[in-house]
Amino acid sequence: VKSLAQLGEFGLIERIRRRSPGAAGLRLGIGDDCAALEVPAGRLLLTSTDLLIEEVHFRRTWTDPFRLGRKAVSVNVSDIAAMGGEAHYLYLGLGLPVNFPLADIDALLDGFLQAAAGYNAVLAGGDTCRSPGPLFISVTVEGSVPPAELVQRRGARPGDLLYVSGTLGDSALALALLQAGSAVDEALARRHHDPQARASVGRRLAMAGLATAMLDLSDGLLADLGHLLSASQVGARLQEDAVPLSEAARRLLTAQPQWQPLALAGGEDYELLFTVDPRHRAEVAVLAAESAVPLTAIGQITAAEEGLTVIDRQGRSLHPGRSGFDHFR
Amino acid sequence: VKSLAQLGEFGLIERIRRRSPGAAGLRLGIGDDCAALEVPAGRLLLTSTDLLIEEVHFRRTWTDPFRLGRKAVSVNVSDIAAMGGEAHYLYLGLGLPVNFPLADIDALLDGFLQAAAGYNAVLAGGDTCRSPGPLFISVTVEGSVPPAELVQRRGARPGDLLYVSGTLGDSALALALLQAGSAVDEALARRHHDPQARASVGRRLAMAGLATAMLDLSDGLLADLGHLLSASQVGARLQEDAVPLSEAARRLLTAQPQWQPLALAGGEDYELLFTVDPRHRAEVAVLAAESAVPLTAIGQITAAEEGLTVIDRQGRSLHPGRSGFDHFR
Repeated sequence: VKSLAQLGEFGLIERIRRRSPGAAGLRLGIGDDCAALEVPAGRLLLTSTDLLIEEVHFRRTWTDPFRLGRKAVSVNVSDIAAMGGEAHYLYLGLGLPVNFPLADIDALLDGFLQAAAGYNAVLAGGDTCRSPGPLFISVTVEGSVPPAELVQRRGARPGDLLYVSGTLGDSALALALLQAGSAVDEALARRHHDPQARASVGRRLAMAGLATAMLDLSDGLLADLGHLLSASQVGARLQEDAVPLSEAARRLLTAQPQWQPLALAGGEDYELLFTVDPRHRAEVAVLAAESAVPLTAIGQITAAEEGLTVIDRQGRSLHPGRSGFDHFR
Repeated sequence: VKSLAQLGEFGLIERIRRRSPGAAGLRLGIGDDCAALEVPAGRLLLTSTDLLIEEVHFRRTWTDPFRLGRKAVSVNVSDIAAMGGEAHYLYLGLGLPVNFPLADIDALLDGFLQAAAGYNAVLAGGDTCRSPGPLFISVTVEGSVPPAELVQRRGARPGDLLYVSGTLGDSALALALLQAGSAVDEALARRHHDPQARASVGRRLAMAGLATAMLDLSDGLLADLGHLLSASQVGARLQEDAVPLSEAARRLLTAQPQWQPLALAGGEDYELLFTVDPRHRAEVAVLAAESAVPLTAIGQITAAEEGLTVIDRQGRSLHPGRSGFDHFR
């Protein structure tokens, strides 16, 4: 079989089913009207859904299908991590352009299943159909969390320290280079095409009861911090020079200082932004060391009236307005 | 606010959130990284996802956005009904063409929420983004069922009677008229643009333990029956003249006899196809009367070796090959 037209819709579904492993709680996976699953007793079900649309979220000339499949999983699992939960089941909706190469479907699926396995999640269902235009990917993830460990966007209190995991701006810098037609450092490219969900760190922060509020950074630090502040009804002071940058980002920003704002405003970091009572600072440091993931304090929560203040590298206090990516503006 | 560009992505999400009612088990709905939900204790979680893509599944010139919103819910809830379950939570992914009218988004959402309420389900999350081409709709539904009442596609046994709910072919006939540029009888149009999921009938069949196998008809009777037969590893004899037709379909088929095959092969009926031990025939009749939904025996399950036999209106035995809608053929 060489083409999607030869394979047919039900041939494709069977091909996907054969490659998808089972799981202990999965009573019924691909091949019936619904998946039927056990949710671990006493746990809350967590569900999130994300769309990835060609020419909006990705370009096929920039991203190979294997990494696209991986990314489709990671950006969804990142939402589960941001609630302190564990991912279990994934659903893949594919709107495929006519003549989409079967080899690319296989590669996308390989990447999807590999990433899922890395997060202990399995593909439990989906939908496949023809698209008259772009490649359209829709992913839904289900996970769970003990109710007492659920971490929401609301919950930050004045005095809490504001942390981020990993380094920021790498993905946005890779995109800026791609858009400029420049060569992209592989370390930056990986952060853009194949981001890792902070699954283990998010879960550990929740289990240890350390995070008072948390979300994942997809729209840019300032925009997402704005969501956390309004959900928690608090303000924050953010130190720009405390924002962690990778070696590759640091080098690039020295050469291209006009891209400095991308560390604060660029999207698709898929790092965790969370708040912690300052008495637990040492425990966060231990968790960072044990996880081998940098967890960096970049500011502090204040009263709501103070709004958001950014202390820039020159020590000036700035009050940024709305920023970050908006699909419709 | 008049346009999507003025409203912005987060304005749109907030607009959707304000209109979405809560529910007892919904701990956390729209507005965080994930929805957080309680699954009724001791029940299996059922999940299904469906894509609706403009120019593939619908045309905006044929379907108004309100009914499109309703249909997006019903086709998903139909999958839950086919397992014998109850729908609880819905997730709506929207890829919106630039300049998509805000009034149409509101109408789509009104239809979506109205249909959801009719099935006792609530909108718990989703994703919104721009589409560079057609309108993309992705819906995921979560429901639940007591494990002992789960009805799968496999489970049909030789000797079981084969039933369908409602009438078949109405939706396909409406589509044939639309494609021919002809006026469409409102009774047929409603079946195409605003199908009803057989939520109550599916649930009652499962609770009563009557259905040995079940699925919902979306690809056409012969194609979906093929899925049930292969999952159950059985054959079937089907009486063409027993297939229930609506008054409107009967009238149209008298005038347009070339469309006769659509009752057996046309898609999007969203009726239930199920099998029942013949000793329970009377109970099915009572359930049909109490539900005010026709449940009609159209054939009988046989041994696998006999394959699928259709006895046509002239009494001839036919052995149809593969048929029904395939997205890629």
